[in-house]
Amino acid sequence: MEITVMHDFALKIIQEAGERIRQSFSEKLEIETKANANDLVTNIDRETELFFIEQIKSYDPSFKILGEEGMGEPLDSLEGVVWIIDPIDGTMNFIRQHCNFAISVGIYVNGIGKLGYIYDVMRNDLYYAIQGQGAYLNERKLEHLRPLPLHEAIIGVNATWATPNRYIEHEKMIDLVHFVRGTRSYGSATLEIAAVACGRMDAYMSMRLSPWDIAGGAVIASEVGAIVSNLKNEAVNLEKQDTFIIANPEIHKTIIEQYINLK
Amino acid sequence: MEITVMHDFALKIIQEAGERIRQSFSEKLEIETKANANDLVTNIDRETELFFIEQIKSYDPSFKILGEEGMGEPLDSLEGVVWIIDPIDGTMNFIRQHCNFAISVGIYVNGIGKLGYIYDVMRNDLYYAIQGQGAYLNERKLEHLRPLPLHEAIIGVNATWATPNRYIEHEKMIDLVHFVRGTRSYGSATLEIAAVACGRMDAYMSMRLSPWDIAGGAVIASEVGAIVSNLKNEAVNLEKQDTFIIANPEIHKTIIEQYINLK
Repeated sequence: MEITVMHDFALKIIQEAGERIRQSFSEKLEIETKANANDLVTNIDRETELFFIEQIKSYDPSFKILGEEGMGEPLDSLEGVVWIIDPIDGTMNFIRQHCNFAISVGIYVNGIGKLGYIYDVMRNDLYYAIQGQGAYLNERKLEHLRPLPLHEAIIGVNATWATPNRYIEHEKMIDLVHFVRGTRSYGSATLEIAAVACGRMDAYMSMRLSPWDIAGGAVIASEVGAIVSNLKNEAVNLEKQDTFIIANPEIHKTIIEQYINLK
Repeated sequence: MEITVMHDFALKIIQEAGERIRQSFSEKLEIETKANANDLVTNIDRETELFFIEQIKSYDPSFKILGEEGMGEPLDSLEGVVWIIDPIDGTMNFIRQHCNFAISVGIYVNGIGKLGYIYDVMRNDLYYAIQGQGAYLNERKLEHLRPLPLHEAIIGVNATWATPNRYIEHEKMIDLVHFVRGTRSYGSATLEIAAVACGRMDAYMSMRLSPWDIAGGAVIASEVGAIVSNLKNEAVNLEKQDTFIIANPEIHKTIIEQYINLK
């Protein structure tokens, strides 16, 4: 299949899913005080994932789907065409802020990322990439990331990673947090990955991301020269949960070598 | 002077200032690689503050102006009508992200907050309040904040405050960061204050804010029942830099009593 044809189809259903979320969202707002907030988001997560599955399966039943809500079939390998989907990334923001959440989609062919999408639903901002053809924020082509010294960097890191935790030596993270120009935390992994891809941040790291958090962003990252890996500097594995970092190349190297001590 | 007349005038010049920033911003983008990024933002900060001063002084020369860039007259008291202005809050975001910054304006009459504005320039979102008449996000009236247990709270706190620092005992902040549902950090005090006012976060604190960071937000906070104070639980002082917290009332009390140990 032509990759541009699949891209057109992906664009269409992602935008439609976003529109459905925006609509269900304003309806749900009326009943939110009666409903359990966690149930609410689960329903919309699931409805959105089901929407993707139905659309994708009627488009081509041979496509495989790995989704956060686990509503596709069990996935035993990345062979063939695999859609890796997070229907709503940034669940807490979705419930509490009604913004700052995203739909994330990565389309892989035999394990190779071909198409990646991160859709900031409420701002109607679409970050996307086609392998080998560059990355975009809406109509604007994203520039290749430029080198930047670590002390001028803005890094996305949750405050808890600079406090005692079971994943990483926090003393080094304290050094990092103090050394860089600033830290940010948005509460949505995919939007923080998108921020690095478009140069608004220079690194983002997490101790536990899942394939659907990473799949779309990894394709976009690759097109702008951002480096993605786990915190051991191994290639991301799209079949399990793992640590994660995306960064400007030099900053990726420096953070991994000088600031990461995994437990 | 009728407060609604002053409100109409404030709205007009804030929106015009935002439009000027957006325009100068796209022009500057072309020359940014030649210019020093810090000079660039200083110019736009200053040009914006000067714009406010010119507009306000030609409207009523008796109005006093306290601005971040110090381009108004020295202010010896809060008597009379005082405009307290931050032309661009979130400087680093302005330079690096080209979004996530705000114009903040508070209008005080004999020290009493009458009008407050936080304008998210790139998203065209205006948070504002008229004393006694409620607070708004664009056309939508903001609801009074509802009680929420601390363990369900989202709090805005920079990672550095949970690490050794000269302002506050960080051990208690570590407890806080682990106890709450989540933390966020946006890099703009006024946008984080606005987030609390509209219920997207439940607390935001900082170790060093200036009057222009607080003045607009304090008026908005008051209209939705958010509590603002310094971290000793004293009323905010609009004549000096100080620690700061805005929060949902119960959460304000709990954080101050149980988690804040100033050095």
